[in-house]
Amino acid sequence: MTGRNEEELNGVTHLGNQQVEYKMDYAPEVLESFDNKHPENDYFVKFNCPEFTSLCPITGQPDFATIYISYVPGEKMVESKSLKLYLFSFRNHGDFHEDCMNIIMKDLIKLMDPKYIEVWGKFTPRGGISIDPYCNYGKPGTRFEEVAWNRLANHDMYPETIDNR
Amino acid sequence: MTGRNEEELNGVTHLGNQQVEYKMDYAPEVLESFDNKHPENDYFVKFNCPEFTSLCPITGQPDFATIYISYVPGEKMVESKSLKLYLFSFRNHGDFHEDCMNIIMKDLIKLMDPKYIEVWGKFTPRGGISIDPYCNYGKPGTRFEEVAWNRLANHDMYPETIDNR
Amino acid sequence: MTGRNEEELNGVTHLGNQQVEYKMDYAPEVLESFDNKHPENDYFVKFNCPEFTSLCPITGQPDFATIYISYVPGEKMVESKSLKLYLFSFRNHGDFHEDCMNIIMKDLIKLMDPKYIEVWGKFTPRGGISIDPYCNYGKPGTRFEEVAWNRLANHDMYPETIDNR
Amino acid sequence: MTGRNEEELNGVTHLGNQQVEYKMDYAPEVLESFDNKHPENDYFVKFNCPEFTSLCPITGQPDFATIYISYVPGEKMVESKSLKLYLFSFRNHGDFHEDCMNIIMKDLIKLMDPKYIEVWGKFTPRGGISIDPYCNYGKPGTRFEEVAWNRLANHDMYPETIDNR
Amino acid sequence: MTGRNEEELNGVTHLGNQQVEYKMDYAPEVLESFDNKHPENDYFVKFNCPEFTSLCPITGQPDFATIYISYVPGEKMVESKSLKLYLFSFRNHGDFHEDCMNIIMKDLIKLMDPKYIEVWGKFTPRGGISIDPYCNYGKPGTRFEEVAWNRLANHDMYPETIDNR
Amino acid sequence: MTGRNEEELNGVTHLGNQQVEYKMDYAPEVLESFDNKHPENDYFVKFNCPEFTSLCPITGQPDFATIYISYVPGEKMVESKSLKLYLFSFRNHGDFHEDCMNIIMKDLIKLMDPKYIEVWGKFTPRGGISIDPYCNYGKPGTRFEEVAWNRLANHDMYPETIDNR
Amino acid sequence: MTGRNEEELNGVTHLGNQQVEYKMDYAPEVLESFDNKHPENDYFVKFNCPEFTSLCPITGQPDFATIYISYVPGEKMVESKSLKLYLFSFRNHGDFHEDCMNIIMKDLIKLMDPKYIEVWGKFTPRGGISIDPYCNYGKPGTRFEEVAWNRLANHDMYPETIDNR
Amino acid sequence: MTGRNEEELNGVTHLGNQQVEYKMDYAPEVLESFDNKHPENDYFVKFNCPEFTSLCPITGQPDFATIYISYVPGEKMVESKSLKLYLFSFRNHGDFHEDCMNIIMKDLIKLMDPKYIEVWGKFTPRGGISIDPYCNYGKPGTRFEEVAWNRLANHDMYPETIDNR
Amino acid sequence: MTGRNEEELNGVTHLGNQQVEYKMDYAPEVLESFDNKHPENDYFVKFNCPEFTSLCPITGQPDFATIYISYVPGEKMVESKSLKLYLFSFRNHGDFHEDCMNIIMKDLIKLMDPKYIEVWGKFTPRGGISIDPYCNYGKPGTRFEEVAWNRLANHDMYPETIDNR
Amino acid sequence: MTGRNEEELNGVTHLGNQQVEYKMDYAPEVLESFDNKHPENDYFVKFNCPEFTSLCPITGQPDFATIYISYVPGEKMVESKSLKLYLFSFRNHGDFHEDCMNIIMKDLIKLMDPKYIEVWGKFTPRGGISIDPYCNYGKPGTRFEEVAWNRLANHDMYPETIDNR
Ligand SMILES: [Ca+2]
Ligand SMILES: [Ca+2]
Ligand SMILES: [Ca+2]
Ligand SMILES: [Ca+2]
Ligand SMILES: [Ca+2]
Ligand SMILES: [Ca+2]
Ligand SMILES: [Ca+2]
Ligand SMILES: [Ca+2]
Ligand SMILES: [Ca+2]
Ligand SMILES: [Ca+2]
Ligand SMILES: [Ca+2]
Ligand SMILES: [Ca+2]
Ligand SMILES: [Ca+2]
Ligand SMILES: [Ca+2]
Ligand SMILES: [Ca+2]
Ligand SMILES: [Ca+2]
Repeated sequence: MTGRNEEELNGVTHLGNQQVEYKMDYAPEVLESFDNKHPENDYFVKFNCPEFTSLCPITGQPDFATIYISYVPGEKMVESKSLKLYLFSFRNHGDFHEDCMNIIMKDLIKLMDPKYIEVWGKFTPRGGISIDPYCNYGKPGTRFEEVAWNRLANHDMYPETIDNR
Repeated sequence: MTGRNEEELNGVTHLGNQQVEYKMDYAPEVLESFDNKHPENDYFVKFNCPEFTSLCPITGQPDFATIYISYVPGEKMVESKSLKLYLFSFRNHGDFHEDCMNIIMKDLIKLMDPKYIEVWGKFTPRGGISIDPYCNYGKPGTRFEEVAWNRLANHDMYPETIDNR
Repeated sequence: MTGRNEEELNGVTHLGNQQVEYKMDYAPEVLESFDNKHPENDYFVKFNCPEFTSLCPITGQPDFATIYISYVPGEKMVESKSLKLYLFSFRNHGDFHEDCMNIIMKDLIKLMDPKYIEVWGKFTPRGGISIDPYCNYGKPGTRFEEVAWNRLANHDMYPETIDNR
Repeated sequence: MTGRNEEELNGVTHLGNQQVEYKMDYAPEVLESFDNKHPENDYFVKFNCPEFTSLCPITGQPDFATIYISYVPGEKMVESKSLKLYLFSFRNHGDFHEDCMNIIMKDLIKLMDPKYIEVWGKFTPRGGISIDPYCNYGKPGTRFEEVAWNRLANHDMYPETIDNR
Repeated sequence: MTGRNEEELNGVTHLGNQQVEYKMDYAPEVLESFDNKHPENDYFVKFNCPEFTSLCPITGQPDFATIYISYVPGEKMVESKSLKLYLFSFRNHGDFHEDCMNIIMKDLIKLMDPKYIEVWGKFTPRGGISIDPYCNYGKPGTRFEEVAWNRLANHDMYPETIDNR
Repeated sequence: MTGRNEEELNGVTHLGNQQVEYKMDYAPEVLESFDNKHPENDYFVKFNCPEFTSLCPITGQPDFATIYISYVPGEKMVESKSLKLYLFSFRNHGDFHEDCMNIIMKDLIKLMDPKYIEVWGKFTPRGGISIDPYCNYGKPGTRFEEVAWNRLANHDMYPETIDNR
Repeated sequence: MTGRNEEELNGVTHLGNQQVEYKMDYAPEVLESFDNKHPENDYFVKFNCPEFTSLCPITGQPDFATIYISYVPGEKMVESKSLKLYLFSFRNHGDFHEDCMNIIMKDLIKLMDPKYIEVWGKFTPRGGISIDPYCNYGKPGTRFEEVAWNRLANHDMYPETIDNR
Repeated sequence: MTGRNEEELNGVTHLGNQQVEYKMDYAPEVLESFDNKHPENDYFVKFNCPEFTSLCPITGQPDFATIYISYVPGEKMVESKSLKLYLFSFRNHGDFHEDCMNIIMKDLIKLMDPKYIEVWGKFTPRGGISIDPYCNYGKPGTRFEEVAWNRLANHDMYPETIDNR
Repeated sequence: MTGRNEEELNGVTHLGNQQVEYKMDYAPEVLESFDNKHPENDYFVKFNCPEFTSLCPITGQPDFATIYISYVPGEKMVESKSLKLYLFSFRNHGDFHEDCMNIIMKDLIKLMDPKYIEVWGKFTPRGGISIDPYCNYGKPGTRFEEVAWNRLANHDMYPETIDNR
Repeated sequence: MTGRNEEELNGVTHLGNQQVEYKMDYAPEVLESFDNKHPENDYFVKFNCPEFTSLCPITGQPDFATIYISYVPGEKMVESKSLKLYLFSFRNHGDFHEDCMNIIMKDLIKLMDPKYIEVWGKFTPRGGISIDPYCNYGKPGTRFEEVAWNRLANHDMYPETIDNR
């Protein structure tokens, strides 16, 4: 088969490896990256993650969310199986919804140094109210800084219809 | 569990407290806030509140709405259980739809001093017509003032399909 | 205008009356009926009631449901505005979901003596789980008794998709 | 063109006639029928009529419904443009929802003498509650009598989701 | 109950009045307004009106539409029950779709002198084609004039899917 | 490739033939069949045909429908490209909706001698009303005769929601 | 009835005329216009046309599309029944999808000289792929020229989900 | 408040108790029941549980499902907060999808001795395929035994559309 | 972890094995089964398989379908990863839609000897028409034989809406 | 038939040719173009391609996506049947999702030299996460360069709801 050669997959250890370990608490170290082969052209990659779950830091009860992560890669890209293992590490970890989204964004910035990234969590309701935090980032000193501001300024002007059913 | 420590939850009294009291009339005093741990990065938090109900000030008949509240926190954030109790306090209170939305926005501004906030109510119909008020606010003297104007100027150019069923 | 004459509206006092009073607790006495003009032909009437709310008997927190009431009238029919006032009377009343549905069905049987009736409540979730009670009744000694059994035996074999959003 | 010849369109006067008159009150006399060319095989014809409107007999305010009419023709079939004119004649006529559905069914039975017919009205809400009457009929002395009973007995076991929006 | 006092409801005569008369032809005089209590903050109010019907000026056949009216109030706001009576007055009135929308907008401008207003009608098809007129207005000499131009220039770039069913 | 050999495709001339001719009027002779390889087991085949169009026999204006054809094959099966050409032949042909459905069913019975067949047309509205004819057939002397009766007797008890948009 | 007088309907010959002829090939001459009564205010009119069909110029097989036409009228407006007859004239005409959309737009520009117009066709798939051409136009020398450019530059950034079913 | 008295809530310890413990492995002992107050009338209660998660017994990776539980109570009913805690106990437990559903049903039968019960799990896909197990039970020696057989025999004849997005 | 022990996973070789080989032509031999642990209770298992693709036996062009497989296990159950590999083996194999569904059903009967099984394929359109074959089977000499007949007799009376988009 | 003449179809060899060959690996050479007849007016053409499949370069397992390709033609346009053959050539080819989208875009740029082009792939999930890459391009030295930047900067601010079912 054509496609990426071995060298181009340098640093990817989880994908196609059956023996990966699922961490029982917050584990940013499982994140892995690989090289962006199209750095001359800015483009978006989005991850749809409807199977996120964590714990409430106060009551210990489970929280559930769908997380949407979109980024414009710089030189590095996050490998999707390592992202899955990373998100799994929140499973028995407790934190506020707003804090989780900021932490995930910061860990991915640290891993990939992307040109742009945004993270949007959409949680299920507790007590009849649901919370959807959204944070984003544009690399300082690039024109993605302005992109980040504009996307924030125009964020979610058409909230989806929610009826808790 | 990791996450916020006790100090970081200063001022949060309703969450995880089974003995909270449900107020029978408009009670802005139940609102509580906590510290924003990510003040260096502007981000959005949205509350979906499909279980809002109040009374018609003229006829006393019940009104129902889904309320969407979105804000960019400054130093303080509203605690969601206190928000629930606050919205509950409209249950036996009478006011016009348009007035309710403005009041809710003003109370949250007073509580949190946010950089930006918007409140959108979508009511069920009376006499075949439904009313959806939307108000917003950007902190004076910041660039969120312009954000507020732009979001108002571009508000809801794609009204959702309504057929009263 | 043609249609029903005054005599045929005997006993209807709430409809077209602006001075009706909204009761603050469970008030089955507000229910009113009128004559069925087509008793020779069995037919169904369904009420869609998406604006039902009551209180949790343990915690006092509000519950919300959509209630579907379907019946085959005998000699009497329930007047819809009185039904609205009756359902309103649960607004500040506390009872379990399952109990509310049974009580509503029994009050309507007492009012109308219908050939058949069913009441289905679909509540919003608490703690990530929602409850949908369904009860029905066929007049004893008629073939609607068997109808009730068959409808129960075949009830809801295609549960609607629920994701709490 | 092939298809029906002139004789087979006997009695059809409204279709393709620009000068038809719109009646301002209940006018069953505008209904027209034509011959069923496939009487040896029982089959269904359904009319979807989402543009029905009448007046409330008490308050004079307008009511709106979608009406679904399904029938198995005998020797005669209702011509669809005459059906449109007939339904229009309710526009400034006042009657209860339940009465309208029974009247429409009876007028069509008188016109066509069908083997089977059913009429289902789905109205928009007044005061937060909507009403959906359903009536049906099987020709006495045929096995469609039992069909009518069975369809009534199993009517609408999956009520559509209604949220008044 | 708290909320608006009597003085603040000055000029509102239809709401809570059972004796209102339904006009049989175009009646702009039934429109009523009341004071905007939040004039210092620009905000939107939207009316969803899915029960609009008029007559074709050429053939007399009924037309049906859902009308969406959105405005930013100045000193006055339109009272919703009077709006309902006003829209009802088109019921037996004949005019082209495009003309109706412009007339409704002009009458509301005359009544309220709003900062901004837009009216969008979505009609059901005749001959397989449906027509959706949209008109808007920004108060001359204010920055809402530019808002009106921008909203027109960007109007409906994502037409809803229509299949006539 | 494995699958059917040439002999098993006996009589199939249109499929994979670029030179097929599109007939300009009703042409039942284009229908082709092939052998059922699984005659020992009764099974269903459904064709979804959303691109059907014919002409009104009175006014010449075009009619549009989605047709659903379901059958249980006997020894023969209809080849799908020939079915497409057959349905195309109605394109400039005029007939009533109800007549078209009966004709299509009869032509397919004549071609294939199926155990069971049903044809359901769902047309777009004219004058605000749409028509959906449904006819079916079970081979006389087999238990599919009773199947046909039962499917007719229980036909379409949940009419789809139609709003002409 | 009020509304447009005869003079204001000058040039409209198809509407309300039962004897109109359906052309069997491309017939731009059937298009008719009437006067815009609100030329002082720019506004949009959209036609939803889900019943468009033409032929493939290579194979002769039928193509189907929904066409959305939106325009800002100048002094003239296109009459909708003449538009229907015009679109019908493509029924037995062969052309590429992209060419059809450009031709329709050019014919309407020639007829009405609008300030702005856009035409969007959404075709059904052939060989698993469907094609959706979109073209637009702003009157040269007016600020609608820039509107046309901006609408093109921002066209369809949220393609609808397509799964060919 | 009216409703259930203390005695009628006998045995309910989790509801309204903030100190409940979340078990880290399969814990059927947390299930609690209370008395059915309407035992003379058979009725259904359904729990919608979209927040179920367990682990794959082979690979340890997380599985997610929505579980629908419907039952006809006998003398006892399951308390919903204890059900939530019970389902939570699968969070870090590994078992096959089909086994989980059977285990949940058996535990609830043991707790409540219901007249009828069914449990339907709808899992998210792994490797492009998702699995939906369904099991049910009718109390032996009652006519619910036949109900269980009939519901199984007619289970899910209209599988929902699944496209893995 | 609890759940199935090693012995209970006897014969399962693909699951959790990274070295599985993807076969390039029809390969029924990859199917694997494991023991049913709940044989005393009849229950359903459904596989949703939206990623099925094969080739047209005449033209070699690709076909796509969603396949729904439902069965009541006897002593054996099909392992889902082996099912995935089996369905993959059709990827470069050519056969008619109707033949594929029958072959899949027969291979699964041979593997598992189930009490009941059904296979429903829903293909994407070619030439504007799509084909949905459905076949089923009940074990001879058991009451599932009658179940199979009844499910076939009542198959798909509500065809999903198809518009090829 | 009117429409394009032979010369205007110069270079189109696959369309209407039954003997086309399906390539078994990546084959950019099958792409064909034809002349744009409306080069004076910029317009968009979109291809909806829901039947894309490739192989994972690491594991060999199949991947599935819907691809949306939108472009503004220069002098050349891609012929749709050749596009289908080209996309087919990925069927047994292995590459990362992000790489596939970039390759497709580059091949189409090379073929057509378009003014603008964008390619958006939406894949089905693996391990609970799905990936949607989006890349675009504006011709250097034209104002479409800025269009490309703006469309990227505002890309997908409303991610579609994904729940993996
Ligand atoms: Ca809803
Ligand atoms: Ca929902
Ligand atoms: Ca609706
Ligand atoms: Ca939902
Ligand atoms: Ca949802
Ligand atoms: Ca609704
Ligand atoms: Ca559709
Ligand atoms: Ca539609
Ligand atoms: Ca609709
Ligand atoms: Ca519709
Ligand atoms: Ca679709
Ligand atoms: Ca889909
Ligand atoms: Ca889906
Ligand atoms: Ca989905
Ligand atoms: Ca579709
Ligand atoms: Ca879904």
